[in-house]
Amino acid sequence: MALDPARTVRDLEELRALTGDENGAQRVAWTETWEQARDFLRSKVDGTGAEEEIDEAGNQWFTLRGDSGRALIIGGHMDSVPNGGWLDGCLNVMAGVEVLRRIAEEGRPPVTVRLVSWADEEGARFGRSLFGSSAAAGSMKDQDELRSLRDRDGIALPEALKEHGVELDGALAARSQLEDAAAYLELHIEQGPVLESMDIPLGVVLGTFGVERSRFTWRGQAAHAGSTPMDKRRDALAGAAKLALYIREIAAEVGGGAVCTSGGVVTKPGIVTSVVETAEQLLDQRHLNADSLARMLAMAREAADRFAAEENIEVEWERIWSIEPILFDETLIGFADEAIREVSGTSHKLPSGPLHDAAEVSRAGIPTVMVFVQSLRGLSHTKLEDTKPEHLELSVQVLDKLATRTLAWLS
Amino acid sequence: MALDPARTVRDLEELRALTGDENGAQRVAWTETWEQARDFLRSKVDGTGAEEEIDEAGNQWFTLRGDSGRALIIGGHMDSVPNGGWLDGCLNVMAGVEVLRRIAEEGRPPVTVRLVSWADEEGARFGRSLFGSSAAAGSMKDQDELRSLRDRDGIALPEALKEHGVELDGALAARSQLEDAAAYLELHIEQGPVLESMDIPLGVVLGTFGVERSRFTWRGQAAHAGSTPMDKRRDALAGAAKLALYIREIAAEVGGGAVCTSGGVVTKPGIVTSVVETAEQLLDQRHLNADSLARMLAMAREAADRFAAEENIEVEWERIWSIEPILFDETLIGFADEAIREVSGTSHKLPSGPLHDAAEVSRAGIPTVMVFVQSLRGLSHTKLEDTKPEHLELSVQVLDKLATRTLAWLS
Repeated sequence: MALDPARTVRDLEELRALTGDENGAQRVAWTETWEQARDFLRSKVDGTGAEEEIDEAGNQWFTLRGDSGRALIIGGHMDSVPNGGWLDGCLNVMAGVEVLRRIAEEGRPPVTVRLVSWADEEGARFGRSLFGSSAAAGSMKDQDELRSLRDRDGIALPEALKEHGVELDGALAARSQLEDAAAYLELHIEQGPVLESMDIPLGVVLGTFGVERSRFTWRGQAAHAGSTPMDKRRDALAGAAKLALYIREIAAEVGGGAVCTSGGVVTKPGIVTSVVETAEQLLDQRHLNADSLARMLAMAREAADRFAAEENIEVEWERIWSIEPILFDETLIGFADEAIREVSGTSHKLPSGPLHDAAEVSRAGIPTVMVFVQSLRGLSHTKLEDTKPEHLELSVQVLDKLATRTLAWLS
Repeated sequence: MALDPARTVRDLEELRALTGDENGAQRVAWTETWEQARDFLRSKVDGTGAEEEIDEAGNQWFTLRGDSGRALIIGGHMDSVPNGGWLDGCLNVMAGVEVLRRIAEEGRPPVTVRLVSWADEEGARFGRSLFGSSAAAGSMKDQDELRSLRDRDGIALPEALKEHGVELDGALAARSQLEDAAAYLELHIEQGPVLESMDIPLGVVLGTFGVERSRFTWRGQAAHAGSTPMDKRRDALAGAAKLALYIREIAAEVGGGAVCTSGGVVTKPGIVTSVVETAEQLLDQRHLNADSLARMLAMAREAADRFAAEENIEVEWERIWSIEPILFDETLIGFADEAIREVSGTSHKLPSGPLHDAAEVSRAGIPTVMVFVQSLRGLSHTKLEDTKPEHLELSVQVLDKLATRTLAWLS
């Protein structure tokens, strides 16, 4: 039996009807609807001969034993944000089901093939994303913080997990799942506008951006809007405004896909009759190259000091969060690029702005690659998220061809 | 008996001890502490022979009958903001008491001399400033709105006024108080940094700025900070940042003391991971010349449209509030300038950024002038508000000499 990509689209539509409503997908991790989605996945894998296992972190595994214990893993996540899109996460899983079916029907594979649905990629309920994959990758090091997280109803994370059979203290035991992992493949919607703007359906992901998140706090002097001449002012907003514009120059100068975002400015006292005394400015900078990222941050900090001096105000810098760039495997990138060209004629290599479970797996030292399929209007995390059905079908074909090449490589 | 400016400083210190606490002045209008301040004022005027009257708007008048019924009025306000400064408003009144004493001791004046303490200049409790003076000037036209105002405890303005003997519906009858007014003088702390920066104690006020208050709403597109390339963004913050910096060019180009303030920017969604979709920006522009003010607003609006086009975003303009410039009387400006030079050697002419009761009186067609005395560090509406005692004493002398010149002019 051949691969049937149209079946994947039908499966996704069925899942949408089952677990979504008029506001979008509702497959939030650690909820009943999420369990429904996991039951649905179980029913779809049924008949392939793959064995199910839920590990200590709540990840749902399906294993098709091969001649070798070394494993090719295809992974995604069934969980969504509230009022989310119908494809984010589950496209990967449902396409993986189709690839698993095709491989199973061809008989025992040369190496073991596994499909995983990671638990709580989105972190929508407790604000901590990549839960299951970070446990399996061994990078989960914030157990104490996780213990203190509560949802909006005041329910603690450990309590919620327990209801779904997961003991937080034992979650890191999921590390054993990756012991025999030889390669990891993940198909995902792009969640950005690049492929659509190039008018091509598919691209191969080079890695996930390193991220530097900063807070710049500008401090000037509140002063009456009427009685303070322009040359006597110490306006905190002026510093924030200069930096909000200068970050474009940073991105342009560093190049290589660099992005800088000033996602918010909070001004105090924030009234019409006063010069701004304090402005808190958030800055998010991303690059695929660690040195370039470090340079971007240094440029922002130097500029901030310069602007503060120009404006006779003060500026304080604080790192909120950072993560290093994670580069995917060159061999697998080559395979994915070939598979995309074979299926759709044109490929494009691009970085991933958002993080994904694949980044955790890659950090654990397992050769990893991701494929992106075009998102319409770049939208995600909304019910408006969409991808053309013909592109979805192409993406299933690409995942299948990528799996075939990878299996041959591992054999 | 001669004028005793040191007594005014002592009176002010006494008032501070009586009606302030460790957080500053607490003479908020329509409170018990405000009534205490009015009692204090009454006790200080006592013995001058001036007759007290509280008008329909709660303004407290002291009238020293002269040969003519035409009246020279000296005015200020005893009310303060919560945790306010010790001089704002009451310096004028207490200096007026001293001038009244001096005039009374010299016998019946050629024209009637009146001291007024306006009710609720600050609008601290209900958010509506210049209550008493706007009633007397006849410019109070927002009776319906006033009726609906409530303080933070939910008490309606009419109820609060009633407790202090004022019926809102009858407040406009206070207009009769200005029927015989021939000139109005007001001494005030500068509440700004100009005189201190010039190292001179006193200045004459040319008028109060006209004000244009606007809200610019910038609308772009929320987009993921990681997955959206720089050239695909529609960043609402960029428009606000450009305008926040451009308003300085407007003020510099128009000149003549023009001030522009972007007092606050609110960004949405305002999170570190998203390009700003909406930015609401407040703009306050002031000038003493109506044409210049109109030009300043036109420049801001044109620039906003240009920035929106550059950024591929939208901008919407809304007028929040505006008031025309109010120019003080040229003859009285000349008298004040002479009085200041005589007392302190150097004078300076400057506009008033904040509004004052004097603006209401001037709008009613009565020749008006104000004198500013230096504020230390330009601070006001805080317990840190201060003026050197020697400058306070000079200011009382100036008010006295200005009154003498004005009386001679009216006689």
